[in-house]
Amino acid sequence: MKISHIEHLGIAVESIEEALPYYEQVLGLKCYNIETVEDQKVRTAFIKVGDVKLELLEPTSPESTIAKYLEKKGPGIHHLAFCIEDGVANALAEVEGAGIRLIDKAPRKGAENLNIAFLHPKSTQGILTELCEH
Amino acid sequence: MKISHIEHLGIAVESIEEALPYYEQVLGLKCYNIETVEDQKVRTAFIKVGDVKLELLEPTSPESTIAKYLEKKGPGIHHLAFCIEDGVANALAEVEGAGIRLIDKAPRKGAENLNIAFLHPKSTQGILTELCEH
Repeated sequence: MKISHIEHLGIAVESIEEALPYYEQVLGLKCYNIETVEDQKVRTAFIKVGDVKLELLEPTSPESTIAKYLEKKGPGIHHLAFCIEDGVANALAEVEGAGIRLIDKAPRKGAENLNIAFLHPKSTQGILTELCEH
Repeated sequence: MKISHIEHLGIAVESIEEALPYYEQVLGLKCYNIETVEDQKVRTAFIKVGDVKLELLEPTSPESTIAKYLEKKGPGIHHLAFCIEDGVANALAEVEGAGIRLIDKAPRKGAENLNIAFLHPKSTQGILTELCEH
């Protein structure tokens, strides 16, 4: 697989409204969009830093995986997403062949309409890892 | 403060030798340097992805903060470092004025001879945050 860059960092927050002043007023960054991803039960705020996005993830339901993460670990970096130049489907086949445990067996649609798939943190040095393609 | 990009992600690992095959053989990335930072009691492997570095941090002593992190939380993303265009000393004064709790009151030398300073995760939405300048 060919990784071009880190597409985004997923950051679990209790509340986008409460988190944004830190990113915007203290760090001087700028949120350019907020959208809701219904099937993941999250509201997401997007901030660009160099060629990486920070995605603030706020749960919209107690059943959201982000709500469960916050309950267990508190706010912080939830996942790391790489941009794959030669396609997520190819990359999944390749990493599965290398013995990596997959969360998604096939690409699905994520935020900003990207094709995405998650790898299991047990196989990725403890980091929940997402592969994305534009 | 003016942030240009994410300078690096600090990633806690039990062993660089055991972690590198995942990054190099599975993800297809390349480690370009390994160095020891004596005063932080870590050995660090550097990998470049787009304009961001991944810094794998392996403790060289049980007293290392990374050893304590691994014991408590296991391997994973330990900190997020921003590259500051207008200097770390200025940025520290600015964020302290905004009520952010500092770990380092003044810049000190970190890996790759950068000037660095850490902000406390209690003030930064749960993410241990480093400011760096080249």
